[in-house]
Amino acid sequence: MELLKQTIANIKELDQESMKLAEERSDSLIKPPGSLGVMEEVVVRMAGIYGNPLPAVGEKVVMVMAGDHGVVAEGVSAFPQEVTPQMVMSFLWGGAAINVLSRHAGAKVVITDVGIAAPPIDDPRVNQCRIKNGTDNMAKGPAMSREEAVQGIELGIRLAQEQIEQGAKMLATGDMGIGNTTPSTAILAVFSGLDVEEITGRGTGLNDQGLKLKQQVIRQAIELNRPNSLDGIDVLAKVGGLEIAAMAGVILGAAANRIPVVIDGFISGAAALIAKAIAPISVEYMLASHLSQEPGHKMMLKELGLKPLLHLDMRLGEGTGAATAFLIFDGALKCHSEMLTFAEAGVSNKD
Amino acid sequence: MELLKQTIANIKELDQESMKLAEERSDSLIKPPGSLGVMEEVVVRMAGIYGNPLPAVGEKVVMVMAGDHGVVAEGVSAFPQEVTPQMVMSFLWGGAAINVLSRHAGAKVVITDVGIAAPPIDDPRVNQCRIKNGTDNMAKGPAMSREEAVQGIELGIRLAQEQIEQGAKMLATGDMGIGNTTPSTAILAVFSGLDVEEITGRGTGLNDQGLKLKQQVIRQAIELNRPNSLDGIDVLAKVGGLEIAAMAGVILGAAANRIPVVIDGFISGAAALIAKAIAPISVEYMLASHLSQEPGHKMMLKELGLKPLLHLDMRLGEGTGAATAFLIFDGALKCHSEMLTFAEAGVSNKD
Repeated sequence: MELLKQTIANIKELDQESMKLAEERSDSLIKPPGSLGVMEEVVVRMAGIYGNPLPAVGEKVVMVMAGDHGVVAEGVSAFPQEVTPQMVMSFLWGGAAINVLSRHAGAKVVITDVGIAAPPIDDPRVNQCRIKNGTDNMAKGPAMSREEAVQGIELGIRLAQEQIEQGAKMLATGDMGIGNTTPSTAILAVFSGLDVEEITGRGTGLNDQGLKLKQQVIRQAIELNRPNSLDGIDVLAKVGGLEIAAMAGVILGAAANRIPVVIDGFISGAAALIAKAIAPISVEYMLASHLSQEPGHKMMLKELGLKPLLHLDMRLGEGTGAATAFLIFDGALKCHSEMLTFAEAGVSNKD
Repeated sequence: MELLKQTIANIKELDQESMKLAEERSDSLIKPPGSLGVMEEVVVRMAGIYGNPLPAVGEKVVMVMAGDHGVVAEGVSAFPQEVTPQMVMSFLWGGAAINVLSRHAGAKVVITDVGIAAPPIDDPRVNQCRIKNGTDNMAKGPAMSREEAVQGIELGIRLAQEQIEQGAKMLATGDMGIGNTTPSTAILAVFSGLDVEEITGRGTGLNDQGLKLKQQVIRQAIELNRPNSLDGIDVLAKVGGLEIAAMAGVILGAAANRIPVVIDGFISGAAALIAKAIAPISVEYMLASHLSQEPGHKMMLKELGLKPLLHLDMRLGEGTGAATAFLIFDGALKCHSEMLTFAEAGVSNKD
């Protein structure tokens, strides 16, 4: 709990002076002011995060957190639970979408076992940090204890710090865990007060009957556990997940170290809601990536006050939307530093 | 006219067999089917364009067409006309947004003077293909003759062919021309029948008074010239632009050579509407990039039946949205060819 407390205390407001200077530079570049839209906004925000009006492109890391969910016993996923470790193996082979898109974006992928429900994967490229073999079934009781939830968050904080110490200048959250749209939807329902029907999706491909069951299970988990929406750790422990805890930790760790963190899709968004509940200023350090096909994702981003850049109808997780968005952020940073000013180029400014 | 006729005749339907095979491969990759959303759709379409179920990442070229507009005499732009050649100079220096974003995407920029209203730029890196020194003022008469419109389109076709012969596997349209949101809005109004008020924006930054004037000028140009919405060349000649003609030619040339062409924002979209009117199948070869801040762009994409990937509130032109989207298309192609299949990875498929 000490690390989490320290981390929260270290999350400060953005540097207004750097943001002002970045905005001035942006307006001096050879384009109508504001015509690069979100690219300009995002660079100004990064200037405030780094405390540097001219931030450079730097090392990027996707933090993929893997964990299983006891609630799959209720039949809420179209894929069997064994897929979680199988997909982690394919991450190691470099053959999953997150590997391809991270290579394309020039980003590193760091894989952590936070709580897979299978024998440990014996490979040094996996951070072996398992808290337990998957969460408990939240339809029958809390997904985990409050201590385990804090342990998961602090793990994420430590892993983020480790990457930042090694030179990472931008982090992204990624997830792997069969069944994890179920706790994510529960988290969104608790914080937003929205109707479970409205925000529950088919995940990896449920049929109509499966969707109905999933909605019922989510409602049951919330009614049974009564998570307190004013206490992010309580929500996380009762209806969350181990990988969600670790991703929330990555977000808080990035914010405390003044590093921007790109939020992937629906599961990452649930972690972002937890991080926001724990430390509201942390949202200033979050960069949205894509709008997922999950029906609740739009409302989730609204809760976070974030605007997605990519509208690709993706619903894969793993950090794939965030890795793709890295390319946009790097492009924005390059425009900011490599474009000529009106004065340099001898271009006439607006009348 | 002969080249245009031949080109139209060479635009054929997409290859259904390659699309079917690409879709089968996509569904065999380790992800829930469809979970990469638009990335999957776009690869299937590219398979149909190339006639190859496993298309590779290839050379990319942004075709930037520069031209001026006689209608600026009416006061429809916030920037003076001298900015057109000044910006072309900055393209040569590599300091404009299109240079930065094309470098970032690994794309080449090809600049063509189709009709700048200033002394020619004496530099071998500019294709000197000027048809005339800017269009005539469409508020007083047609922007150009029918012959000049065809000349502009055929120029675009030839330039596209030249790049494709040199190895380009994907083209993008880009524009530079002070005042060119005015003809683009007129083109959209003619084809869509939408109200000019509804679709006219502030371009590079008009104030309220300037916006009103622009709307009035557009209405006047349409009423005076009476373009025939069933005749794309007529619309182009009466209320279009020289750079718009050349971009329409690039689109038709790409389609005739079975090469996908990425459509940038509002001005490129106007060229795409002209191309569609001339050869309806050409839309199958168009890939949308971003949704511009121009109020009419959404309706324009709807007319074209295209869905934008990037929601960045950009309104810069030059091809900047298209260059950025190249990165997404390359990522999609890489996912399609580099991801493992369920069988290869030993991952369990859906129940």
